[in-house]
Amino acid sequence: MEKKALDGGEAASIRLPGPAAKADPRRAPAPAAPKKPSAGPDRRVVVEKVRPELDGGRFPVKRVVGEPVAVDADVFADGHDELVCFMLYRHEDDAEWTRVPMRPLGNDRWRAEFTVAELGRYLYTVEGRLEPFLTWLRDLKKRLEAGQDVRPELPVGAQLAAAAAGRAEAAGQKTQARRLKDLAQDLETKGDPREKAARLAAAELTSLVVDWGDPAAFVRHSRELAVTVDRVKARFSAWYELFPRSTSSKAGLHGTFKDLAAHLPYVAEMGFDVLYLPPIHPIGRTHRKGRNNALKAGPNDPGSPWAIGDETGGHKAVHPELGTVEDFRKLVSAAQDHGLEIALDIALQCSPDHPYLKEHPEWFKARPDGSLRYAENQPKKYEDIYPLDFTCRDHKALWEETKSIFEFWMQQGVRIFRVDNPHTKPFALWEWLTSELRRRDPGLIFLAEAFTRPKVMARLAKAGFSQSYNYFPWRNSKWELESYFHELTRTELKEFLRPNLWPNTPDILTEYLQFGGRPAFLVRHVLAATLGASYGIYGPAFELCEGAAREPGHEEYKDSEKYELKRWPLERKDSLRAHIARVNRIRRENPALQNDSSLRFFRCDNEQILCYTKQAGGNVVLVIVSLDPNHKQSGWVELPLPEFGLAADKPYQVHDLLAERHYLWRGNRNYVELDPQGIPAHIFRLRRYVRTERDFDYFL
Amino acid sequence: MEKKALDGGEAASIRLPGPAAKADPRRAPAPAAPKKPSAGPDRRVVVEKVRPELDGGRFPVKRVVGEPVAVDADVFADGHDELVCFMLYRHEDDAEWTRVPMRPLGNDRWRAEFTVAELGRYLYTVEGRLEPFLTWLRDLKKRLEAGQDVRPELPVGAQLAAAAAGRAEAAGQKTQARRLKDLAQDLETKGDPREKAARLAAAELTSLVVDWGDPAAFVRHSRELAVTVDRVKARFSAWYELFPRSTSSKAGLHGTFKDLAAHLPYVAEMGFDVLYLPPIHPIGRTHRKGRNNALKAGPNDPGSPWAIGDETGGHKAVHPELGTVEDFRKLVSAAQDHGLEIALDIALQCSPDHPYLKEHPEWFKARPDGSLRYAENQPKKYEDIYPLDFTCRDHKALWEETKSIFEFWMQQGVRIFRVDNPHTKPFALWEWLTSELRRRDPGLIFLAEAFTRPKVMARLAKAGFSQSYNYFPWRNSKWELESYFHELTRTELKEFLRPNLWPNTPDILTEYLQFGGRPAFLVRHVLAATLGASYGIYGPAFELCEGAAREPGHEEYKDSEKYELKRWPLERKDSLRAHIARVNRIRRENPALQNDSSLRFFRCDNEQILCYTKQAGGNVVLVIVSLDPNHKQSGWVELPLPEFGLAADKPYQVHDLLAERHYLWRGNRNYVELDPQGIPAHIFRLRRYVRTERDFDYFL
Repeated sequence: MEKKALDGGEAASIRLPGPAAKADPRRAPAPAAPKKPSAGPDRRVVVEKVRPELDGGRFPVKRVVGEPVAVDADVFADGHDELVCFMLYRHEDDAEWTRVPMRPLGNDRWRAEFTVAELGRYLYTVEGRLEPFLTWLRDLKKRLEAGQDVRPELPVGAQLAAAAAGRAEAAGQKTQARRLKDLAQDLETKGDPREKAARLAAAELTSLVVDWGDPAAFVRHSRELAVTVDRVKARFSAWYELFPRSTSSKAGLHGTFKDLAAHLPYVAEMGFDVLYLPPIHPIGRTHRKGRNNALKAGPNDPGSPWAIGDETGGHKAVHPELGTVEDFRKLVSAAQDHGLEIALDIALQCSPDHPYLKEHPEWFKARPDGSLRYAENQPKKYEDIYPLDFTCRDHKALWEETKSIFEFWMQQGVRIFRVDNPHTKPFALWEWLTSELRRRDPGLIFLAEAFTRPKVMARLAKAGFSQSYNYFPWRNSKWELESYFHELTRTELKEFLRPNLWPNTPDILTEYLQFGGRPAFLVRHVLAATLGASYGIYGPAFELCEGAAREPGHEEYKDSEKYELKRWPLERKDSLRAHIARVNRIRRENPALQNDSSLRFFRCDNEQILCYTKQAGGNVVLVIVSLDPNHKQSGWVELPLPEFGLAADKPYQVHDLLAERHYLWRGNRNYVELDPQGIPAHIFRLRRYVRTERDFDYFL
Repeated sequence: MEKKALDGGEAASIRLPGPAAKADPRRAPAPAAPKKPSAGPDRRVVVEKVRPELDGGRFPVKRVVGEPVAVDADVFADGHDELVCFMLYRHEDDAEWTRVPMRPLGNDRWRAEFTVAELGRYLYTVEGRLEPFLTWLRDLKKRLEAGQDVRPELPVGAQLAAAAAGRAEAAGQKTQARRLKDLAQDLETKGDPREKAARLAAAELTSLVVDWGDPAAFVRHSRELAVTVDRVKARFSAWYELFPRSTSSKAGLHGTFKDLAAHLPYVAEMGFDVLYLPPIHPIGRTHRKGRNNALKAGPNDPGSPWAIGDETGGHKAVHPELGTVEDFRKLVSAAQDHGLEIALDIALQCSPDHPYLKEHPEWFKARPDGSLRYAENQPKKYEDIYPLDFTCRDHKALWEETKSIFEFWMQQGVRIFRVDNPHTKPFALWEWLTSELRRRDPGLIFLAEAFTRPKVMARLAKAGFSQSYNYFPWRNSKWELESYFHELTRTELKEFLRPNLWPNTPDILTEYLQFGGRPAFLVRHVLAATLGASYGIYGPAFELCEGAAREPGHEEYKDSEKYELKRWPLERKDSLRAHIARVNRIRRENPALQNDSSLRFFRCDNEQILCYTKQAGGNVVLVIVSLDPNHKQSGWVELPLPEFGLAADKPYQVHDLLAERHYLWRGNRNYVELDPQGIPAHIFRLRRYVRTERDFDYFL
């Protein structure tokens, strides 16, 4: 497997042959694991409740390069013996474990951390053993304090030291063996026990005995757990979706990849880093849908890009009106020059004209009379689309073909895939596919488009998707947003489901956007871009605040771009592009906004005002958003200042990065006022230091 | 294995040969489980998060005979197909599963219940499969509603019905096969589809097709989970501990089993059902402890019963001054006549004179010079006790010998054991021992005396102990009690750790009891007896409100009965025996107090007043206790009346079972006043019905 550390990371961990040579005292190589540890009475240590652990280790948790993994476990034994615990971890390509001593947290819970430095998969587990020398030493000290005669106890310690010396010697560590032998002898011979105990501490002899403790005595957690390590972009990304065919500079013309290339600066200047294209393949003619999803297409209607395939080709072909595969490769490269990565939509379904229908009718669902079934979600019919049957008899060939589709586009330079409707295909397909493909490139990113049931969404994320669509579009009130983001960032979900927040998509124009006008788009954009380290918009409909729905009570766009070419008035004055560019710049400049794990909500006495922070090291961002697109709202927000390193009795500065204004605040309650006619949000950076008279010369 | 249903239970479940013969439509035998289900794409169903499940199925949960087990699971698949789910359960002695259809709870969660009717172990698991006929039928109905032409769909249903017919036929169910064939034919032939659909519903044909669905399509949870079924007494018991040697009617004489037999009515009249005796074995002479734990015993000091063994015998012998093994058997029988079961203390340790020390020195810990180690908890020394080393080389023999100790006393009629300090022996010993012994008698009850770390206590409970000592003695304030009992009854602990609440023991005289006087004993008794379905007291010290400690800041009794004979003034007027008898009678008469799972705390505006309810069916008991042994306390308690079936606007009766008083309450807020000089507690039974003028003739 290829290993890449593309988005940063730290130097490779040190793995050295023996304790003697260890450079970092916190790290030592693991001794060979005992083959099948016996469950006998000598295995008195219990290792359980190791976290993170998903479904008993069935699925890996997720991190990106450079992130820490904090591993906790209950480790204990009967009785009162001392024990030592280690976390073991390794990249799956490495044969040897790196061992990190765990520290006790109290109540028999232990913790250690490691940082994932490379793409791919790391494994980790926990082991512990009783440490008789530490128990002996602890009791020796107590005996000395109680004024007992400890001479009968010294040979016990000597015996343990001698055993450690034997193991060191067997491992060829002569110097250490010598020191341990000397220790054993010192304990055996006459002399003041107090002085012997002091010598033990002074020369770090104790840790030497522990280092050479009996490796066979370790009890290891019954499972090795895994963490998948993605590129940083899997966690922190700003997506922009557009239809390439709508990028022609001439009205009525079908846009091409070349037109799109000319359009790249527009997207790049807004600060996005992923440019996501709906399917770029030939579009079927049979049962092609017309404007506004009409059953019959007019002669010039371009059809839905999701009705994939015609006689010229299917999922590995490019729609002739867009250009060629060669043009696409050039586009990928041009996008790179603008800091944009192209994400491709993989929609595993076929128009009636797709070559698969003729070549592989066995891959489709048929009625008893042999007629193939088009897609349905009864009573809705999609006559222009035939679903593939991934559980058909010939599924192996179909799965391999599916893999080859992804591989084809990887060869053209694509490393990010947005997968359409993954929830209507078997979980096993995704688990196999994502792991097979990541073998070639562990930097692949898969976004699951599955607005489906919570358990199914979670399972897809476990099966290998790096990011997930989610219910953000329909969470509008304060209570909804707080409780949903609590679920995403504070429950087990945080270990494997990375939300990507989309205020709109070509299929989803929410009522909030339909009726809230420009302020609603501003609000939803700030929420998406700051609640989510990853977010995306479907543009230019979004920045142009397109809010017209096809019919009341529905979420489809009027004159949807899915069925017709568009020419967007990009230079319109009320476009949000400058605002979006500012927010994306704030995101790049503030590490706090590049993670979801630090999200915390705080009290505001107005139910229309949402107040939350994100944090990364010393970078603290406080976001205050009015959810009301219609009226001015004001209220008092409350912050636990000491938790941000701010003194409750000293002034501090809040710097509004959106409006470029600075305010002096003092105390934990502060007043805010938000006007939908301006910008109904503050994105504050908290700054601790405020200068007082004492900072200036004239005060002296 | 023997199977016993000692404390009630229900009729054995019905297990019949095929769906045709099933008496209860909710129960059907499981088809033969597919050998090793493939993980292929056809296995689209996911079964996960099955609850209850401890540590991934490593340990069983616990119930008593007659209790329900509610099994929940997430069961779902990709796509939109309908599925069916079953819970499977069986007693471990039965080869065949009983299958119960699970009902959907929403959000892809399913539930079914079964009742454990017999002692021993039950297994349970969950399986689900896609049900194509239900999917087809659902879509057929939608198509009909949408006015679509459904004729092309009918052969699909016919095909599924024919497949079901084939399976019924293969199983020899001719009548059912015939009905299914007729159905298939009906769907194949011409006619009004609406009438066909109606016929399907009317004749319960749908469930017949489902019953004969493809058994190979089931996906089963990867683990079989277990529940240990104990006697009801494992959940509901009132223990009384006394020292037999203190039961002589003559001052200064060593009490005997015969004296104790005469003492049984005293204990029985207080309403206890378990009489627990400290160790009854010969007591060592060497290093025997004197009064108040003095290092040297006087010539007449009887020594601690926990210093077990002398030249006449060890753990299988009876202290000569108590009587003989024969006397003990008679005592067990006499106790039974009084409704009392004898619980024996098993303390796995030896006095220096125990025969084991000579016969099996290899079972003890020795220093390098060969000298054996007495018990220590540095710097404390127990020179009169040598611990056994259960991890010694010869541990197999020692474990077998330990087992034989329990077996010996089982042969004398003992079925309840209180185990001393189990936390200083390997967990593996207990797991092996309790399961081995329960093979002989699944009605055995083991109480773990382990006032040790929370994780260790929990692990002992998982390893097989039926009941556990716990931190109740040290939980005195409202916050402490509420949060501790929340932990015991609302977290995972409730599935396997049954608390037994002891306000005092021979080793524990809490400061609350030392300084609170008689009201403190009343308060702690009501708390123990009503918060805990199982509780115990060490008497007669408890009912006589013995509160004198050996020294300030310590919990040992002054002139502790552990080291001397006592003669208790049982007839003293201020004894709590009448009060205790009343509370124990209330416990027996109110099923609400016989479980811990229904415990709920409610608001009282006075921090000294605790308010909680327990419930069993229509029996609701409301307990209100003042925690202040010194001052009168009053306050307003708040109850969510509708949850108890009480109308907020109608009067209801609260019947104080302690004081035998009736009060009329109305509304959810009511006033209470508690006086430590009287009884600082109410034990109310809530009674819904209050007669009004409309209930009497003269109103008409």
